[in-house]
Amino acid sequence: MSGEDAPAQQQNDVDQKQETKPAEEPKTEPPKTESPPAGAAEAAATPEKVPEEETFTYRALVLTGYGGYDKVKLQVKKGKPALKAGEVLVRVKACGLNFADLMARQGLYDRLPSPPVTPGMECSGVVEAVGEEVTDRKVGDKVMVLNRFGLWQEVAVVPASHTFLIPEGMSFEEAAALPVNYITAYMMLFDFGNLRPNQSVLVHAAAGGVGIAATQLCKTVKDVTVFGTASASKHETISEGGVTHPIDYRTKDYVEEVRKISPKGLDIILDSLGGSDTHKAYNLLKPMGKLITYGSANMLAGQKKNLLAVAKNWYHQFSIHTLSLIQGNKSVCGFHLGYLDGEMELISQAMNSILSLYKEGKIKPRIDSTWHLEQVGDAMRKMQERNNIGKVILTTEPMPEEEKKEEPKKEDKKEDKKKDDKKKDDKKKDDGKKEEKKDDKKKEEPKKEEKKEEEKKEEVKKEEK
Amino acid sequence: MSGEDAPAQQQNDVDQKQETKPAEEPKTEPPKTESPPAGAAEAAATPEKVPEEETFTYRALVLTGYGGYDKVKLQVKKGKPALKAGEVLVRVKACGLNFADLMARQGLYDRLPSPPVTPGMECSGVVEAVGEEVTDRKVGDKVMVLNRFGLWQEVAVVPASHTFLIPEGMSFEEAAALPVNYITAYMMLFDFGNLRPNQSVLVHAAAGGVGIAATQLCKTVKDVTVFGTASASKHETISEGGVTHPIDYRTKDYVEEVRKISPKGLDIILDSLGGSDTHKAYNLLKPMGKLITYGSANMLAGQKKNLLAVAKNWYHQFSIHTLSLIQGNKSVCGFHLGYLDGEMELISQAMNSILSLYKEGKIKPRIDSTWHLEQVGDAMRKMQERNNIGKVILTTEPMPEEEKKEEPKKEDKKEDKKKDDKKKDDKKKDDGKKEEKKDDKKKEEPKKEEKKEEEKKEEVKKEEK
Repeated sequence: MSGEDAPAQQQNDVDQKQETKPAEEPKTEPPKTESPPAGAAEAAATPEKVPEEETFTYRALVLTGYGGYDKVKLQVKKGKPALKAGEVLVRVKACGLNFADLMARQGLYDRLPSPPVTPGMECSGVVEAVGEEVTDRKVGDKVMVLNRFGLWQEVAVVPASHTFLIPEGMSFEEAAALPVNYITAYMMLFDFGNLRPNQSVLVHAAAGGVGIAATQLCKTVKDVTVFGTASASKHETISEGGVTHPIDYRTKDYVEEVRKISPKGLDIILDSLGGSDTHKAYNLLKPMGKLITYGSANMLAGQKKNLLAVAKNWYHQFSIHTLSLIQGNKSVCGFHLGYLDGEMELISQAMNSILSLYKEGKIKPRIDSTWHLEQVGDAMRKMQERNNIGKVILTTEPMPEEEKKEEPKKEDKKEDKKKDDKKKDDKKKDDGKKEEKKDDKKKEEPKKEEKKEEEKKEEVKKEEK
Repeated sequence: MSGEDAPAQQQNDVDQKQETKPAEEPKTEPPKTESPPAGAAEAAATPEKVPEEETFTYRALVLTGYGGYDKVKLQVKKGKPALKAGEVLVRVKACGLNFADLMARQGLYDRLPSPPVTPGMECSGVVEAVGEEVTDRKVGDKVMVLNRFGLWQEVAVVPASHTFLIPEGMSFEEAAALPVNYITAYMMLFDFGNLRPNQSVLVHAAAGGVGIAATQLCKTVKDVTVFGTASASKHETISEGGVTHPIDYRTKDYVEEVRKISPKGLDIILDSLGGSDTHKAYNLLKPMGKLITYGSANMLAGQKKNLLAVAKNWYHQFSIHTLSLIQGNKSVCGFHLGYLDGEMELISQAMNSILSLYKEGKIKPRIDSTWHLEQVGDAMRKMQERNNIGKVILTTEPMPEEEKKEEPKKEDKKEDKKKDDKKKDDKKKDDGKKEEKKDDKKKEEPKKEEKKEEEKKEEVKKEEK
């Protein structure tokens, strides 16, 4: 979230580049790469580097190159990061996963410096040290953090202005689930969208992180009708969450479904899909309607960059002439929190409103599942394959030894998906007990997820070092 | 303002098409066209037409073809228009001129049916008759009217829902100046723009009707900074009206001027110019900024359609990709009240808020000048040549005989413009006495305007019939 453009991180110029990477720490150990000779060469290139405190080590996830889920590796780093004025050191408890992280892994997100780099735009934790000139944070403060990247690790150094105090009663998981999704939904609905009573809103991927946040925020305004797309198995959950009209986009034409209920169209459309869906959204707007596009989920097809999907998205990219806007009395807006660098004042305003709503009990992040750092590949897969309802969270809690040794079963993918959906239904029923049971679930649930055996093996091998 | 698409008006299908032209009345007399034989043929085509009341006559301005100022002719019509359910008959007192009327005269505005047709989107007057099912208006009510066209005449029939009661203390001139400009400015600033305290707004043509309305509305919000473009001679007036930073667009680059004061750019830009200025506006937006484009004033160059200006405007027409919007966190909106057909609920909401602000003394339409129907050409010229500060109004009061006979002096155009600017300055100083002096001014002022002798002669000739 710093205003500077952090350049690609290079192994052999760690010292020089450190200043431009607020959430990065000195690399005292080269990351494990697939080719050991290269790693050795890099290590040799930084012989003069001496860590601040030899004994200080912490684990960090590192994107080692663009590609599949296995490109994010768990590494151990040495040396306590130094604090500059205005910064705080946070002992990270939980991290949020976002679509931008998935795009970044494929090399489709230009706000992340080139690999190797630690991803992660949001986390929660405890302030462990404060730099000079920091007056509003102290050691022991529970905070949530928003940053451009670098938060998927046990220890993160960030500007104090990028931290927000966690309110009473909010868990670390919730706090890690809140910043990106709720600020995004809030600014889209209440700044660009100017949402008012009696209006109608279409939320794509209504069971996703932003979708659930947007739905909850819509319900804070009187008589707002929410149309939400999601696969059928998620409809009960999103209806309970506030979606007035759930639409199964896999079996039905959502444009037709909306027109049946709201022939004149909609006041606000939150478009996370991009490509040809943006065109559909535009045509679905009422006069004075606002289309807010905030993603290109259509570009993500498969683990690795799918050139066809990317090209298709570009080909269908929505472009609008002012004459059409004038004659339609329409508004087209683009939003992405990752590009809102340096606008911490706007972000803080939104966050204050969001935290007030939380304290009033009007919004509450919904956690889909929590994963150990070692399981980041599976966590990303769950999100990318749209098997989540709510937020996918990483915890920095160490993974019990018995779980690590256990080899995941290779299961039929489709069958597993069905199981997964079923499991969600079960889970939903005892949502009330969720808070108490979280620890058990964390250890149990991820094991059921489908995995590719070879990937998992590779991951375990690397992270054990 | 009806929801239906009124087709081009044809002389020989008046009866059939009448239903789709809410503000038009039966043509009982063919309009005076340049070619008498055609007129005779048209008259022969409607022999069965019998006026409701033979004795009822009224004057109407009629656009007889696309072109210069002389294309709008004053004609006398016979027969009292019949009222359908839900309609009222208004005895018109004053009419507002709008940019869309100027575009329409050149054939550049597709919301006006083909000539011959009576233009005019707003007027004020007194209800003289009410149709069946009208419950909220009665004979004698003073109203302002908003309609798609057809209001530049002494008598207009409109749906009651298109009328708004004139509040206590508001003159007919003010009431005719209010609807289009204030609703446009209000919806742009408070619906699309979502204007909030401490924001910055750029208003192009800040001395024009919408410009003055927008400035006044900006000042109803705490600590809003208004940048306004206008020629230097108008700066004092617009500053007094609320513009924080007046910018002379004729001698300075407004983009540079804005950047000097607000390096990060602006929150809201109201773009009435179109073409290449829309590009400039887009680049001047802050993150979360809103560009609201609502006109193509750049297209109007000269009296008649200027194909080069139109082509240039098209060539430079702004087109935006969603990726740029996303990366910039920007919003681009288009607004035109003329295309907001059938959205009377939205319009009424805006109007109610506007009238409340008027009653609180927070806004007040500024009248630039008032002209007789016979002088519509000069009134249009004044507006098109940007010599007005505030609203140009037509009055239906009969023009005194002595004024009609007086031949206007042919003066040097440039010199006259200077005089005009000077006169404005003088006028501004005794703004307080304006209300009382209006009647005098009305008869005196227009005579000073520059006129092309030949045009004037032609106009007088036609309108006397």
